[in-house]
Amino acid sequence: MIHVLVERIKKLEAPIVVGLDPMWQYIPEFIRKEAVREHGETLEAAAEAVWQFNKGIVDAVCDIVPAVKPQIAMYEQFGIPGLMTFQRTVDYCKEKGLVVIGDVKRGDIGSTSAAYAAGHIGTVRIGEKELAAFDEDFITVNPYLGTDGIQPFIDVCRERKKGIFILVKTSNPSSGEFQDQKIDGKPLYEMVGEYVSKWGGQCMGDAYSYVGAVVGATYPEMGKTLRKVMPKAYILVPGYGAQGGTAKDLAPYFNEDGLGAIVNSSRGIIAAYKQPPYDKYGESGYAEAARQAALFMKEDINSIF
Amino acid sequence: MIHVLVERIKKLEAPIVVGLDPMWQYIPEFIRKEAVREHGETLEAAAEAVWQFNKGIVDAVCDIVPAVKPQIAMYEQFGIPGLMTFQRTVDYCKEKGLVVIGDVKRGDIGSTSAAYAAGHIGTVRIGEKELAAFDEDFITVNPYLGTDGIQPFIDVCRERKKGIFILVKTSNPSSGEFQDQKIDGKPLYEMVGEYVSKWGGQCMGDAYSYVGAVVGATYPEMGKTLRKVMPKAYILVPGYGAQGGTAKDLAPYFNEDGLGAIVNSSRGIIAAYKQPPYDKYGESGYAEAARQAALFMKEDINSIF
Repeated sequence: MIHVLVERIKKLEAPIVVGLDPMWQYIPEFIRKEAVREHGETLEAAAEAVWQFNKGIVDAVCDIVPAVKPQIAMYEQFGIPGLMTFQRTVDYCKEKGLVVIGDVKRGDIGSTSAAYAAGHIGTVRIGEKELAAFDEDFITVNPYLGTDGIQPFIDVCRERKKGIFILVKTSNPSSGEFQDQKIDGKPLYEMVGEYVSKWGGQCMGDAYSYVGAVVGATYPEMGKTLRKVMPKAYILVPGYGAQGGTAKDLAPYFNEDGLGAIVNSSRGIIAAYKQPPYDKYGESGYAEAARQAALFMKEDINSIF
Repeated sequence: MIHVLVERIKKLEAPIVVGLDPMWQYIPEFIRKEAVREHGETLEAAAEAVWQFNKGIVDAVCDIVPAVKPQIAMYEQFGIPGLMTFQRTVDYCKEKGLVVIGDVKRGDIGSTSAAYAAGHIGTVRIGEKELAAFDEDFITVNPYLGTDGIQPFIDVCRERKKGIFILVKTSNPSSGEFQDQKIDGKPLYEMVGEYVSKWGGQCMGDAYSYVGAVVGATYPEMGKTLRKVMPKAYILVPGYGAQGGTAKDLAPYFNEDGLGAIVNSSRGIIAAYKQPPYDKYGESGYAEAARQAALFMKEDINSIF
């Protein structure tokens, strides 16, 4: 799947991913009202509104971006109906040719990680059948439990040519509390980066591994170091735009081949219609606003090369 | 909810929790066959088998244990039908008076953690209604992202009198790779423990906080240290039984009041019928085997006081 991602990034000249994190307040009122009219004030209404909203965004950006990253928490908060919309969104995006990165940040002891891996990027065996549940192309994974919590994900990546992005240095303000702590003079995130590099050696594509890393745009100096520590890892970069990262901060995340990183924007694209200059499209033009914001982001990021 | 947990532990004299981690191979063949006969070789069949299995276990232990801990990964691997069984299991256990600890190990940046908190222990607002989705009593949380990833869970705990258990030192063999690394001479798990203690100060019950910790039974020396670092945190202790922890290892996890820890066993109880001495109950007696194993565990753990 890393091959597919790299090919699509090259073809569209867009190392960007649209975060499908549909917070309730991002959804235009006309969509919310219609869903509530149909389903009442229920979780089903929320799930239906999210689905309609997503479909508009996906239709508007699928020919200009290589990938989407649905954040499962935004669906899980609406319970089973919300997770049905997550599933439907994953399926629809794949139909449209998008690479789907499930932002699930799972991670547990070995046997439990194996179940998460099966459910999100692998299959389960029921009798004679191998069945896939959510079946994203990539997922994000939390490293706090160490190698035996990560290995089951890697095993599934190898078997089914899927991929993972492991949290190394996250984009949030408090990420340094634990991640920046020095161990023998070197920060924890760097140590985790070294493990990512080692784990990734087990499943290499051509130039890049199936095992990537998450490094926030908000810490460009650390991005520079981590690029060197993990030369073969694709870096998924959150934090651009709304969280404060700018294009010039992003140069160190890329390799000399112009590849090696994919930058996420969520709110800055899917809720673009709420802010200037895209507010001119209005609520009803939220999808076109998202398209224009994605085109601007592409240009902005390509300006660094 | 910490009050309710402590009261139930005292009343039943059983600081134990049954892990509802129904791996496919733990489920007796007669249950699996019946589910496949009814639903074919589908995710629905898997979910139905898990539900029937769980119901048997819950009915057999609900009068002797205070709490259960469903591991969501074991349900999530079966996609939407699996998660419907998770929901049904949570609801059923609460009906039976059990305290439900959702073992979900979620954790993300602030706005995303807020969505997880809403979906698992809080509510979402749709129009005029406040709706709860999964509505567990407690959940487990991953600390890798630091304070701003934890605070939204604490806010919901305060508002709705729910609780969380934060991963401090996990029971798996590789847990030391990052968690044991020394920072200014002190291991990372101890630093996380100090944060748990600080975070927990924001939402105290009578003697214990709504914010607890996960510390594996497999590392009793560390358990001893962490007990002192987090005197007011209830400790959820996985790793007893199948993972190798024994009753004598558990003494340091408790406070002098005989409280402060709750020990989990999953496989050792729910799959007891597969091993001596409980295999005498056979597949059809899996629920009675679980009850007997839980009674033995209660006695075993009480022997340390």
